[in-house]
Amino acid sequence: MKTILLPEKGMWDELCIRPQIERDNLESVVRSIINIVKSEGDNAVYGFSEKFDGVSPANLKVLPHEFLISDKNISKNLKDAIRKAKENIERFHSAQLITEPVIEISKGVRCWRKSVAIEKVGLYIPGGSAPLFSTLMMLSIPAKLAGCKEIIVCTPPGKDGKINPLILYTARLIGVTGIYKAGGAQAIAAMAYGTESIPKVHKIFGPGNQYVTKAKELVQQDGIAIDMPAGPSEVLIIADNLADPGFVAADLLSQAEHGPDSQVLMLTNDREFVEKVKSEVYKQLELLPRKDIAFRALENSRLILLPSLNDCVEFSNLYAPEHLILNISDARSFAEKIINAGSVFIGNYSCESAGDYASGTNHTLPTNGYAKSYSGVSVESFLKRISFQEINAAGIKELGPTIEILAEAESLIGHKNAVSIRLKSLEND
Amino acid sequence: MKTILLPEKGMWDELCIRPQIERDNLESVVRSIINIVKSEGDNAVYGFSEKFDGVSPANLKVLPHEFLISDKNISKNLKDAIRKAKENIERFHSAQLITEPVIEISKGVRCWRKSVAIEKVGLYIPGGSAPLFSTLMMLSIPAKLAGCKEIIVCTPPGKDGKINPLILYTARLIGVTGIYKAGGAQAIAAMAYGTESIPKVHKIFGPGNQYVTKAKELVQQDGIAIDMPAGPSEVLIIADNLADPGFVAADLLSQAEHGPDSQVLMLTNDREFVEKVKSEVYKQLELLPRKDIAFRALENSRLILLPSLNDCVEFSNLYAPEHLILNISDARSFAEKIINAGSVFIGNYSCESAGDYASGTNHTLPTNGYAKSYSGVSVESFLKRISFQEINAAGIKELGPTIEILAEAESLIGHKNAVSIRLKSLEND
Repeated sequence: MKTILLPEKGMWDELCIRPQIERDNLESVVRSIINIVKSEGDNAVYGFSEKFDGVSPANLKVLPHEFLISDKNISKNLKDAIRKAKENIERFHSAQLITEPVIEISKGVRCWRKSVAIEKVGLYIPGGSAPLFSTLMMLSIPAKLAGCKEIIVCTPPGKDGKINPLILYTARLIGVTGIYKAGGAQAIAAMAYGTESIPKVHKIFGPGNQYVTKAKELVQQDGIAIDMPAGPSEVLIIADNLADPGFVAADLLSQAEHGPDSQVLMLTNDREFVEKVKSEVYKQLELLPRKDIAFRALENSRLILLPSLNDCVEFSNLYAPEHLILNISDARSFAEKIINAGSVFIGNYSCESAGDYASGTNHTLPTNGYAKSYSGVSVESFLKRISFQEINAAGIKELGPTIEILAEAESLIGHKNAVSIRLKSLEND
Repeated sequence: MKTILLPEKGMWDELCIRPQIERDNLESVVRSIINIVKSEGDNAVYGFSEKFDGVSPANLKVLPHEFLISDKNISKNLKDAIRKAKENIERFHSAQLITEPVIEISKGVRCWRKSVAIEKVGLYIPGGSAPLFSTLMMLSIPAKLAGCKEIIVCTPPGKDGKINPLILYTARLIGVTGIYKAGGAQAIAAMAYGTESIPKVHKIFGPGNQYVTKAKELVQQDGIAIDMPAGPSEVLIIADNLADPGFVAADLLSQAEHGPDSQVLMLTNDREFVEKVKSEVYKQLELLPRKDIAFRALENSRLILLPSLNDCVEFSNLYAPEHLILNISDARSFAEKIINAGSVFIGNYSCESAGDYASGTNHTLPTNGYAKSYSGVSVESFLKRISFQEINAAGIKELGPTIEILAEAESLIGHKNAVSIRLKSLEND
């Protein structure tokens, strides 16, 4: 980790730059995968699965008996933990289901909005070293609460052609409507355009590698909605000298172990604290199974000393971190000043892992500075709001002349006529 | 207008296809404009303004004295109408400002979300034949209510190098923070990356021609948020034989006059009503100043007879119209069945023009079937929601073991450690 002491403000922008991965031919490779899936359907999905992952599953859709087998290899402890996390996530996200009032704008003019579920959604769950059933929970629970009719999951099978039992268990527990053995850009294309086995959806969610991310970006241009733009995971911790350096180091490492392109930052107003955390980080690092990954992430990472905690907050708002931990004595009042962040963890015991798994908040959050304009996934991500209006004769009589004047000022006489013809019909009422 | 009588269900998908505009080299042209603005700033904006619009304004930023002049040429009637529309839009959108409760997930675990304004937003208002001050209202009023600190507007100047007085008047009335004489893809690029005069923003809103639309799509790939993907405006009307054919025709024409690529559809369950509306459309068309535009839009447009009103609703949900008018006797109960639409107008007197200008709902809505997954612009479009959590010692003691089990099941031991180190420190408490 680089230590940066009292950088001038002119340097802040540069310190906010995320590690970049350049892949010049990525777009053309992914575009070609998408086009082949579009024209060849299931066959293309099987083909790419064999080509990229060395596995060709017997069937794309997971069959009922495959779910049954999955149940048996999961301990009761783990099932209980999954259920508890599910309950907490449901409790937090249920509060996002609201009914808005009808507004009487004026006599005879009533307007309102209604939240309606996106009918068909697709969730992508990456494969790789660990089964991310927590991400499946974070996406499928709000989808279920929103009331989406079709909730499908694509996830790459293992070398044995099977889906990890924990993914299957979680999918069934929450009630997704279909799970498919497909990964990478081909899975995104399949959900965007549909194949013989995999249904077309209206919105695609979930993290993934650069191929998945690029595929989501490209299908978005065809009008398929996506959850948010993606980037490597990151945490920024603001800590003062009352924080426990061991806790801070553990939080930095919990983020660093995600991937070599992750970035972790600590800001503090105490020079000695920087060294304490640094030595704790490298001490704890030695004990991590994913030590090599975390080590590489730490190379992109920084411990920064700033003159005051207010400066730390200002820097954090400029950086707009995905996760922000405020491990400072007056954390609650500093939290009020946060304007750009995905999720904020307040105080010494609020570790990021809590939000990653079980406190109830969502862990699908904007990275790469996107927290300046994007929110994390929520029930709203699975809804759209339709506006309604009901205007009666009295309403149009009163509001109509205003509309006529405004439409005429925009030279849209057809718009004006739609009102005038109604007002005229009411003249003798 | 084409009349289609009782099409088979197998044909519905085809009938939902929107008119396509193919522009093969559009992307490369727009990408090059963006790159030049990125590297040359203001100079590039001036240059493209001269090249594409034949005008090079003296300054990009509108100066205070230009606002003063604008005031004088607007009638009191028109000012009153603008104020009334503003009040209604404010009333409707204010209801979208909500504070969410803090959820106590378990003892010592408190989670909540806070809505925070996107700091800097850019609104694009097209130039052309008519000054779209209504669109400026629809974008700037929710931005103001959300609390955005910087609300800038880009709009192309007229041949005289000036901005239309109605745009200036509206901008000042609502309180935008800066208005700039820039149009086209160069304006979008300027707001996305910043120039000497035009500030960089975090999210860009507003309609525009194909260059503007493509530019928004391209800057979105760089992480600049945009309101929604764009397409030509459209209306779908469901009418029965109790509707007034004149009203229906006027509503169809009010949409058709937007542009030659607009699409208008009427669905009905009454064969005679089709002919009545058709003859009314062509009668009223003759009187429209924008007759030529509307005529071309009608060529893309359809009157469709279906067996029942339920079929009409089913077709409409498949089409997912931007605007949907339910001009049927039991409109309110059919409205309950609508799952895909931007904005719904219920009953004989609820014309689309009302929502376009003054009833209070927003008129920036998803087109091209995007209503299946996107909502119209609202106060939320100018906010992001940050999640917060505060866990105390008792909270982590209770929740911690669950997190440890889940993290371990995902092989993320760093995540587990962040909890374990805290639990260990509390062992003797």
